[in-house]
Amino acid sequence: MSTTDPALLSLTEIAQAIAAKTVSSREVTQACLDRIAAQQPRLNAFMSIEADSALAAADAADAELARGDSRGVLHGVPLAHKDMYYETGHVVTCGSKIRQDDVATTTSTALQRLKDAGTVRLGSLQMSEFAYGPTGHNAHFGPVHNPWNIDHITGGSSSGSGAAVAARLTFAALGSDTGGSIRMPAHFCGVTGLKTTVGRVSRAGAMPLSQSLDTVGPLARTAQDCALLLGLMAGADPEDLTCIAGELPDYLAATHAPMRGARIGIPKAFYVDDLDPEVARVLDETIATLRAEGASVVEVDLPDQPQLTAACQLVLAVEAAAFHKRWMIERPQDYGPQVLMRLQNGLGVPAISYLEAMRWRGPALSAHLAAVADVDAVLAPVAPVPAPTIAESDVGSSLNAEAVIQRLTRFTRPINYLGLPSLAIPTGFSASGLPIGLQLIGRPFDEAMILRIGAAFQRVTEFHNKMPASA
Amino acid sequence: MSTTDPALLSLTEIAQAIAAKTVSSREVTQACLDRIAAQQPRLNAFMSIEADSALAAADAADAELARGDSRGVLHGVPLAHKDMYYETGHVVTCGSKIRQDDVATTTSTALQRLKDAGTVRLGSLQMSEFAYGPTGHNAHFGPVHNPWNIDHITGGSSSGSGAAVAARLTFAALGSDTGGSIRMPAHFCGVTGLKTTVGRVSRAGAMPLSQSLDTVGPLARTAQDCALLLGLMAGADPEDLTCIAGELPDYLAATHAPMRGARIGIPKAFYVDDLDPEVARVLDETIATLRAEGASVVEVDLPDQPQLTAACQLVLAVEAAAFHKRWMIERPQDYGPQVLMRLQNGLGVPAISYLEAMRWRGPALSAHLAAVADVDAVLAPVAPVPAPTIAESDVGSSLNAEAVIQRLTRFTRPINYLGLPSLAIPTGFSASGLPIGLQLIGRPFDEAMILRIGAAFQRVTEFHNKMPASA
Repeated sequence: MSTTDPALLSLTEIAQAIAAKTVSSREVTQACLDRIAAQQPRLNAFMSIEADSALAAADAADAELARGDSRGVLHGVPLAHKDMYYETGHVVTCGSKIRQDDVATTTSTALQRLKDAGTVRLGSLQMSEFAYGPTGHNAHFGPVHNPWNIDHITGGSSSGSGAAVAARLTFAALGSDTGGSIRMPAHFCGVTGLKTTVGRVSRAGAMPLSQSLDTVGPLARTAQDCALLLGLMAGADPEDLTCIAGELPDYLAATHAPMRGARIGIPKAFYVDDLDPEVARVLDETIATLRAEGASVVEVDLPDQPQLTAACQLVLAVEAAAFHKRWMIERPQDYGPQVLMRLQNGLGVPAISYLEAMRWRGPALSAHLAAVADVDAVLAPVAPVPAPTIAESDVGSSLNAEAVIQRLTRFTRPINYLGLPSLAIPTGFSASGLPIGLQLIGRPFDEAMILRIGAAFQRVTEFHNKMPASA
Repeated sequence: MSTTDPALLSLTEIAQAIAAKTVSSREVTQACLDRIAAQQPRLNAFMSIEADSALAAADAADAELARGDSRGVLHGVPLAHKDMYYETGHVVTCGSKIRQDDVATTTSTALQRLKDAGTVRLGSLQMSEFAYGPTGHNAHFGPVHNPWNIDHITGGSSSGSGAAVAARLTFAALGSDTGGSIRMPAHFCGVTGLKTTVGRVSRAGAMPLSQSLDTVGPLARTAQDCALLLGLMAGADPEDLTCIAGELPDYLAATHAPMRGARIGIPKAFYVDDLDPEVARVLDETIATLRAEGASVVEVDLPDQPQLTAACQLVLAVEAAAFHKRWMIERPQDYGPQVLMRLQNGLGVPAISYLEAMRWRGPALSAHLAAVADVDAVLAPVAPVPAPTIAESDVGSSLNAEAVIQRLTRFTRPINYLGLPSLAIPTGFSASGLPIGLQLIGRPFDEAMILRIGAAFQRVTEFHNKMPASA
């Protein structure tokens, strides 16, 4: 352990090492803080770095361990999360100027459950303003830079989560996915990201963007780490009645199941159209690996996906505008131009269009489930391209902003509209060294299956273990 | 029994009489059909009269009874319902020209549950077009006439249900209440009507008007009859997931509980403002009766009711317009002018206003429940006036139509917005002989309490036993 930087271990490994006292929480926390200090000027991944309180909490964790007390499976593990998870007494900016001084008076259920497992708070992570943007640009706090090439975007809205996990500044990070905000940075930054089923993880105390679409989930280095975190966070919550009750599967056990026997569908169209050749190549290589490992891979004929994307955007625009209306009236000047423009677009949508989009959700899900009846998961790109440059994607509130955003998010939004779980995993690299990920789209509430497939894939590949040269 | 017209008995009484073979289903059905034939030209209460099939079903019921077989507690009891409850193989017009030839391919859960208890179908009852109107006017089928004075309206939208129960043409009838459509005709026609809590009775197979507000419930002669019907219809339904699961109270048993100990609130304002003097008198007399019977009656200070009325109308307008959009485009000429105008008003509402109205529902209900924490039910008028004349309320699509509708429905809509149960009971008459009812507004899912109070009131009053002179 002494010869390896503990910050480079996976979440599962570091939790076990701390529990076994192979390394102290303080050593691990200090290692993370050292890396953060070194990388923050390049990456802008953190919103706040709380070194003193983190080290104090690490010392307390070590003292507890010395007494034989452990809070849980993440005892003493330092983490940082997207700055939209309320934590009592802490400023939670939501990536915004409007809330940049707001001190939370509640703690998010998801975050509380991780705290209950023993985590130490390193600080908070950058994000797109109010989680409304897929690039990682932020008009107030600047862009987060991709650790693989700082001229490129991280993707958003969980921009800091993607960058910080990729650069090994935190072992994992909560993100949120309303239109692709976990999967996009996972893909662009080369990490594993789990968008959960709507209703699987409580949204209580997480900043709302779109009540019908918002999902809470982790970005981490491996599918196994995501399974560990999901198992801690999932399940009913009296504070969020949209969260489903009932017994949960053993997600960690699922990650030990074999690839053999898994049935994976590849869409015949849409998700394979107009792909960057390198994304297409990685998709082909991944299919070959899945087959070699014993998965059966077949084509699936999915229903009209562009209509799902459009419905997702309509619902998102309306629900975001409703939540932001008062601030749009009182403080329009305090929004970034692109976020304000997109929020304002939601003001004019007729209620009957919104209701139609909501009512179509059930039938659209039924049609999807019929189309995938013979497979356990669908493999698809997260985006048609690897990470664009910061310069080319900095479209602000220009006329082509919505078109750029649409192009980036067209493979993620249908999944949000349908409420499905999806695991983004690192699957390759472009010739220029940028990560390329793919998403495994599961059935409702069957995160266990996509975690199983992802973990089995990661047992025979090394993409998730590669690190940015600078990190 | 031979000396009394069996059609004049209550539902509970006739069901027992048929079960005891004191009277046959055929005799009862024939008695109803005779009354219908006599009254239909005056009242226009029925949409379709199905004499032959009703008598055949009655004979079959009698044959079953003769063999010792009974289908249930309503074995052989003839009933007719508002013509918006789908029944496979039957035309269900919804009071409209647009659907006047539509043959249903499913059967409504509420109706099926009554059929399973043994009811015989007499035909179907008139209603406001698409249940969108509180007066009982219908541009296609003419107004339904109030049995107490045929120059007056019945109230709507369950116009035929109110008239037919009042005139003893059916022992009870399903209505529906989205903005007052059960309570209004109960009040104007002098019968008992139960608006159920949203989520208490399945809406599957009932024509939708407003998905968030629609409720299914009975109009009958007594609170006891309503309790009998509710007990048969209530409870979870796989076809309507908005309907709540869980054990149901014994509604019939509740109607035998005493008045003593019941705590009844009288609103300090709004519901007692600008009342017709005769409605105000009846309210005072009813309070005196309740007190004399041992209820404690106290004032309650309800939160802003006009805002609830406005929110109800916004939600209703939007959801109705969304449901009707295709027909509004394809067949505008086939709507009555008032219904079309009101549906079109829903097209222009912004989605964020709808979302705000929906989001305010929870807080508004909490505020209401806090205000009524010390009472079991709230007593209030159903409308500020007894039934207006057909002539004065036939406002069509004129500029003051919405104002007339607003005035009529201002005491009913807040209850729909809050989703509460409410029992309208006959409580007196105007000097001109028109019925005056009041509503007992309950707590969510506590229909048992308002049925208890209503039944106790009816044990010591005769308003519900009075019949129109002509009937």
